[in-house]
Amino acid sequence: MRAGEIAEPYPVVSLGVSALAAARLMAQGRLPGLVVTELDGRPKAVLPAWEVVRFMVPDYIQADPNLAGVVGDVSIERLAERLAKVSVGELLPATPMELPVMRSDDTVVELAAVMARLRSPLCAVVEDREIIGVVTASHLLELVCGGQSS
Amino acid sequence: MRAGEIAEPYPVVSLGVSALAAARLMAQGRLPGLVVTELDGRPKAVLPAWEVVRFMVPDYIQADPNLAGVVGDVSIERLAERLAKVSVGELLPATPMELPVMRSDDTVVELAAVMARLRSPLCAVVEDREIIGVVTASHLLELVCGGQSS
Repeated sequence: MRAGEIAEPYPVVSLGVSALAAARLMAQGRLPGLVVTELDGRPKAVLPAWEVVRFMVPDYIQADPNLAGVVGDVSIERLAERLAKVSVGELLPATPMELPVMRSDDTVVELAAVMARLRSPLCAVVEDREIIGVVTASHLLELVCGGQSS
Repeated sequence: MRAGEIAEPYPVVSLGVSALAAARLMAQGRLPGLVVTELDGRPKAVLPAWEVVRFMVPDYIQADPNLAGVVGDVSIERLAERLAKVSVGELLPATPMELPVMRSDDTVVELAAVMARLRSPLCAVVEDREIIGVVTASHLLELVCGGQSS
């Protein structure tokens, strides 16, 4: 079985997309992360959901989570506001989470090995430099374990 | 808003459960990870989906993913077999991924800060030492961004 055979459609966002739009995509699909591309469409990075969560949290609370308990409730609207102001590119850290990129004729075991090494929730599959789909870790588990009885 | 108000039901497995059963739970729900508890029910760790993917891959291919291309296809059945032989406890690494555990009266911002610091796809919420539910990073994004217009 080859990577190209199991790749599925998946939301892909470019660096220029608003962080709020990216967050909504993850929220709607309850996705663990998104594939981020350069402005020209080349695969760039994984944006894990926790990275967006981190960005929402005010800096002084990121530095010391105990402060959140002291300051009490921060309104949900304030958190969303932070996301509305930036693009996905601005939200990514200097060394973003590496996106595993496989060719469509790579084997599923190669894909699994690379995904595991990079500790990534997903992997992009490309053909002629274009992303033809994504394989998530849980989709891979479904393929391997899904149809069998115990 | 407090952690206890937004916690949702979520699969929780103990260390003694078969790794194959845990993998199936993740597969069926397309979940990024599971909450793992000690045998007595105390929260223990996050089992990310990629950790299970890693375990499926034969050791010599984990060491050098290029070898997967050389040996050709490894059958899906062989990968599932590896999972059927071990428990979740045996599959966890010596230093497993830390599970964020919040109290139900912690604020959502505290929860977000801790989740972000641990780079975790999910967070357990406890009341009287018992897990009452889980908040995933994407659920948190849904709460913050879901209902608003751009």
